[in-house]
This record gives sequence, structure tokens and C-alpha cells, in this order.
Amino acid sequence: MTIKETTTIRVRFNETDPLGIVWHGNYISYFEEGRESFGRKHGLSYLDVKTNGYVTPIIESFTQHKLPLKYGDIATIETTFVNTQSAKMTFTYQIFNPDGKLACIGKTIQVFVENNGELSLNLPPFFEAWKKKVGLL
Amino acid sequence: MTIKETTTIRVRFNETDPLGIVWHGNYISYFEEGRESFGRKHGLSYLDVKTNGYVTPIIESFTQHKLPLKYGDIATIETTFVNTQSAKMTFTYQIFNPDGKLACIGKTIQVFVENNGELSLNLPPFFEAWKKKVGLL
Amino acid sequence: MTIKETTTIRVRFNETDPLGIVWHGNYISYFEEGRESFGRKHGLSYLDVKTNGYVTPIIESFTQHKLPLKYGDIATIETTFVNTQSAKMTFTYQIFNPDGKLACIGKTIQVFVENNGELSLNLPPFFEAWKKKVGLL
Amino acid sequence: MTIKETTTIRVRFNETDPLGIVWHGNYISYFEEGRESFGRKHGLSYLDVKTNGYVTPIIESFTQHKLPLKYGDIATIETTFVNTQSAKMTFTYQIFNPDGKLACIGKTIQVFVENNGELSLNLPPFFEAWKKKVGLL
Repeated sequence: MTIKETTTIRVRFNETDPLGIVWHGNYISYFEEGRESFGRKHGLSYLDVKTNGYVTPIIESFTQHKLPLKYGDIATIETTFVNTQSAKMTFTYQIFNPDGKLACIGKTIQVFVENNGELSLNLPPFFEAWKKKVGLL
Repeated sequence: MTIKETTTIRVRFNETDPLGIVWHGNYISYFEEGRESFGRKHGLSYLDVKTNGYVTPIIESFTQHKLPLKYGDIATIETTFVNTQSAKMTFTYQIFNPDGKLACIGKTIQVFVENNGELSLNLPPFFEAWKKKVGLL
Repeated sequence: MTIKETTTIRVRFNETDPLGIVWHGNYISYFEEGRESFGRKHGLSYLDVKTNGYVTPIIESFTQHKLPLKYGDIATIETTFVNTQSAKMTFTYQIFNPDGKLACIGKTIQVFVENNGELSLNLPPFFEAWKKKVGLL
Repeated sequence: MTIKETTTIRVRFNETDPLGIVWHGNYISYFEEGRESFGRKHGLSYLDVKTNGYVTPIIESFTQHKLPLKYGDIATIETTFVNTQSAKMTFTYQIFNPDGKLACIGKTIQVFVENNGELSLNLPPFFEAWKKKVGLL
């Protein structure tokens, strides 16, 4: 079982490079847009997590580019929460160009760090409760 | 009397736009490079200010573009502290292209905000001491 | 007589700084969002201008900050075309925070450069036609 | 046999986030700094490649974070060219914090695209010549 969220973004002029296409590093920002949109809908955003006494730094990210995006393109970001048993949050991303063709795929992994800077080795209670609520546990 | 500091930066690929030149908003980042370089040399950097219990948000910035900078250009930033009597920090900037021609001028104004969020209406003691030390008061 | 356009943006996480507020240089990007939104509505966007054989580099920009914006804030950008007689495009901006309070004002000036790199000293024909169409000439 | 290049960067204020550390997406920019520094030294930079009639878009990138970098940190980027037989350029990166501890590792893969937009399935002649020159073929 997976939970998905679909968001759209419009490519900004300053996100494109001398080749006239989105500079590859900016996809990391699009992933964040998708992930936060997911979080706002499902109660797992940066601010939700913070309210519960945690921050969730990214420890790994992966991007694979299939087709370029250009200035002004309205792209669709599909963000999927990948259910694992570990004390981490894993998301995968698919970004589609205005023609509906796959432009980019990606993945990020986040850990839970408590307010005292301690890495959480077990599922934080709020995250466990969240998983139950959305039917993933 | 003025105090100046000269810094060089190399234009990054992702700072340039589809026209092949530095996107205009990135000059604000170059000004910050110049200002922080000034601050590190003269003891007035973001971290120096923070240590003294203040932050110095920008309340105004101005940029005027004369010539474009291109990818790979090594540009020179000349940062000048403008001595005024108010509880503000004003800097002006001149950015030169690799041929030594003026590419851009700018100005920023910062205020002093105490750790409790209060705007400082008088010169913070550390700033007054700094001005004396460098001969501006 | 003025022509205005209102756009909203949501502050991205990576647009905020260690003080927890939008880094001042990112307002230049918000102005561009406002200007391009204006351009798409009124037929004067980067791509419209390009189709007519011109690019319109920014030669001047000004920003004044009144109140900070924070992560997740939905801000409103009001972009106004300032009608002048010169061969330039001048826009002013007002950015409001979620409470409707003025967070930032700004101004940009652009010139017209032909495909051959020549600065246009007179109103480009397409721009003159545009002004007539929208009732500014 | 591998070819390496070491570069240093200083973390910019606007590269850090509300957690006070470098926003994860900015490491992609540091990798580019490392790769271009490698390119300038060994004759394989963006501009060298362009002169030979090619562009080399990134098709894949990977980042793994070990330790955070903070504002003002002078970090060391070690860029390694990974010799493969395919018509691609693969680089790996190691970024060290000011204490010499590993903060981040990464990898990027680029393809060769000719000026006419055609993907190069064989080693471009200039790249083959480059490999011979540096002793990798």
C-alpha cells in the first residue's frame, strides 16, 4: 500500500541554465515541493514534524533525468511515501513534463533527530501514530 | 574616511541564466560575499555580530547593472563601509569584470536587532567600540 | 492609469535562512514571479518578448523590507506596470504577508536589447503596439 | 588509475537553512564546483567541452550526507574522475568539513550531446583524445 500526492510547479526563469533547461540541482527543490505538499495534505510536513519535537534532515538523495524541463513549463510532481520499518522517511518522486512524459525520477531518505540533537533509532511516537492513522501500520 | 575590502569570486554555472549571463538576483549573493569578506577582515561578520547578541537583517538593497558577467568570469567585488551616525550599517559595492570594467554597483542597509527581537535605535555598544577601533568615531 | 496583477507564492524551505526568514535576495525571485505572472496575463512575458526578437535585461532593482516572511507563508505579490515614455519597462512590487500586511516593496527597470545585442533606444514596435492595446498610449 | 582534484569552498550564508546547516540541495552546486575545478585543471571544463561542439547534461546524481556543514565553514571537495568505457563522464565526490571529517559523498553521470541535440553513443573524438592524453586509454 502506498500514499501519493500530486503537485504542480511552474519552472522559474532563474531555475534554468545557459542551455535553456532547468539546472539539474533545482530538481532537489522540486522534490521538496512535492514532499512538503504531501506533508501538508497528510499531516507530515516540516512544521508538523517540528511541532512534535523533531527535525528530519535528508541523509540521501538520488535523481535521474530523462527529459529536460524548460522555462515556463508546468510540471507535475508525484510524491510517494515508501513504507519501511526503519526509523526513516523515504519518498520517491516522478516529475512529468507538460506533455505528461516522465522528465525525472528521484528518491530521498530522511532520519529523525530529536530537539537535543539525538538521532532517533526507533520510530518516534508521533510518526508511529501517523502511520497507524493513515493505515500503514 | 572609508574602509574598503576587495574580494574575488568566480561565477558559477548555476548562477547564469538562459541568456548566458549571471541572473540579476545573484548579485545580491555577491554583495553578501563582499560584505562578509569585509566583516571577516575587520571583525564585523555575521558571526561577530551574533556573538555580540545581535542580528543585522537587510532592510534595503539596490543594484544597478552596467555590464553582464558570464560563466567562469573571475569578478572583483569592492565593498565599502559607509560611515553614518544612525544605528544602521550601510555598505556600497562595485563589481568589476575580468577586464577591470565596472559590471555592477550596489548598496545595502542593515539594522541591528537584539536577541529578544527588539530593534536597536541606538548604536549597539559593540558597534560603537568597533567604530572607535577602526577610527570612524 | 496603471495596470496591476496579483499573484500568490508559497515560501519554500530553501528560500529561508538561519534566522528562519526568507533570505533577502530571494525577493528578487518573487518580483520575477510577479512580473512574469503579469506578463502572461497581459502578453508581455519573457517568452512574448523573445518571440518579438528582444530580450529585456534588468538594469536596476530596488528592494525595501518591512516585515519578514517565514517558511510556508502564502504571500501575495502585487505587480504594477509603471507607464513611462522611455524605451524601458518599469515595474513596482508590493508583497503582503498572510495577514495582509506589507512585507516588502520593490522596483525593477528593464531595457530592450535586440537579437543582435543592440540596445533599443526607441520603443520597440511590438511594445508600442502593446501599450496601445492596453490603453497606455 | 584515477585522476583527482581538490578544491575548497566557503559555505555562503544563503546556502544555509533554518536548521543553521547547508540545505541539502546545495551540495549539488558544490559537486559542480569540484567538477569544474577538475575540468579547468585537466582541460575538461564546461567551456572546453563546448568548444569541442558538445554539452554534457547530468543524467544522474547521488548524494549521501554524513555530517552537516555550517555557515562560514571552509570545506574541501575531492573530485575523482571514474574511468569507464561508455560514452559518459562519471565523477565521484568527497566533501570534508574543516576538521577533515567526511561530510558528504556523491556521484554524477553526464552524457555527451552534440550541438544538433543528438546523443553521442560513442566516445566523442575530443574525449578519446583527452583520455589518451591523461593516460586513461
